Amino acid sequence: MKILNSPAIRRMPTYLHRLFRLRMSGQEWVSCADLAQYMNIPHIVVRKDIAMTALPGNKRHGFRVNELIDAILRLLGWDKTSSATLIGAGSLGAALLGFDDFQSYNFRIESVFDSSSDKIGRSIHGHEVYDLTDIRKRLKFAPPKVGIICVPAVGAQLVADILISLGIKYIWNFSNVCLNVPPDVIVQREVIAGGLAMLFAKINKAESGENVSGEE
Amino acid sequence: MKILNSPAIRRMPTYLHRLFRLRMSGQEWVSCADLAQYMNIPHIVVRKDIAMTALPGNKRHGFRVNELIDAILRLLGWDKTSSATLIGAGSLGAALLGFDDFQSYNFRIESVFDSSSDKIGRSIHGHEVYDLTDIRKRLKFAPPKVGIICVPAVGAQLVADILISLGIKYIWNFSNVCLNVPPDVIVQREVIAGGLAMLFAKINKAESGENVSGEE
Repeated sequence: MKILNSPAIRRMPTYLHRLFRLRMSGQEWVSCADLAQYMNIPHIVVRKDIAMTALPGNKRHGFRVNELIDAILRLLGWDKTSSATLIGAGSLGAALLGFDDFQSYNFRIESVFDSSSDKIGRSIHGHEVYDLTDIRKRLKFAPPKVGIICVPAVGAQLVADILISLGIKYIWNFSNVCLNVPPDVIVQREVIAGGLAMLFAKINKAESGENVSGEE
Repeated sequence: MKILNSPAIRRMPTYLHRLFRLRMSGQEWVSCADLAQYMNIPHIVVRKDIAMTALPGNKRHGFRVNELIDAILRLLGWDKTSSATLIGAGSLGAALLGFDDFQSYNFRIESVFDSSSDKIGRSIHGHEVYDLTDIRKRLKFAPPKVGIICVPAVGAQLVADILISLGIKYIWNFSNVCLNVPPDVIVQREVIAGGLAMLFAKINKAESGENVSGEE
């Protein structure tokens, strides 16, 4: 089993966010030192992260902003468009639907489903919420690449089973449970409280007198 | 600078979630193998994670569910109550306010602020939304331990400056920017898209024929 360098991969969207800003402001070059200062992390960390893209830098100027954006998008497979369906149009689902950056990643949430009658038919950030019981009818001929699960823990496995039965193999799971899936299905589980645990781990270290500067 | 074992710490809330369930169902003992199977990660990973708590296990039965819960809560500093204020009552803020598990972590969001007139005065999951311009008046005598920033990127630095001026040193930052803070302030930044990057890194590996089983 090949271990992915998770912290490095998780930093990529932050680099992208910064690079998009720099591009908008007309800046042509960026150095690892610039990015390191912005993110408040050691220079060498940025250098190693960027090395994953295999983009050759310029000794004097660093990297061309445009080329670095393209290289990171390629690294993540975000140079091609990916489609997704989102199940569960509660607060968290709505937050994801309003997330502007997905567009820059060529990541398109094309349909939204919920089982609650007060959400079905509503429009959230321009997405009409469909009835979950219609999901097979609506998606069976062209299932999207990714299924996003934003339902409460109790319904998550059922939703996962439905998505998998539709041929969806990649699941982004925001529910609070680990899913039971066939070996060819890939699940990325998000644990909001994982960040709180990180914050407290840093607080504990700081309160015991250790230096824990640096975001991440 | 001491490097925290982020993946291990991020897994702690998932162990807790599982352990709370087991406790509710009356189960007294749990083994690393049980937790490993539930999370679909290697046994040795769970063993190393649990070793961080320094809780001695029983060779035959594993760990007492109750003791393991307490040990993890202690490890994270969640054995004591912590107070927080949340700024930005949009979809994401609302999702955090509805997050039941915080209670089990003794993490209390005690006040909620927003600057938008259509949110001020509303109640979200039992929390009244206060006017952000009143934050100094409301918090100056007893500032909470943690400030949670859920405002859009453009307002995040301003909100951070206000929180810091109130004496809040620990910030959980859900906005999409890196904050500029004094060295004694600790920031945990959450990047939702970081999870999407992880999902795609796994997809890319799978599509190139590599084995990437295991959540995380």
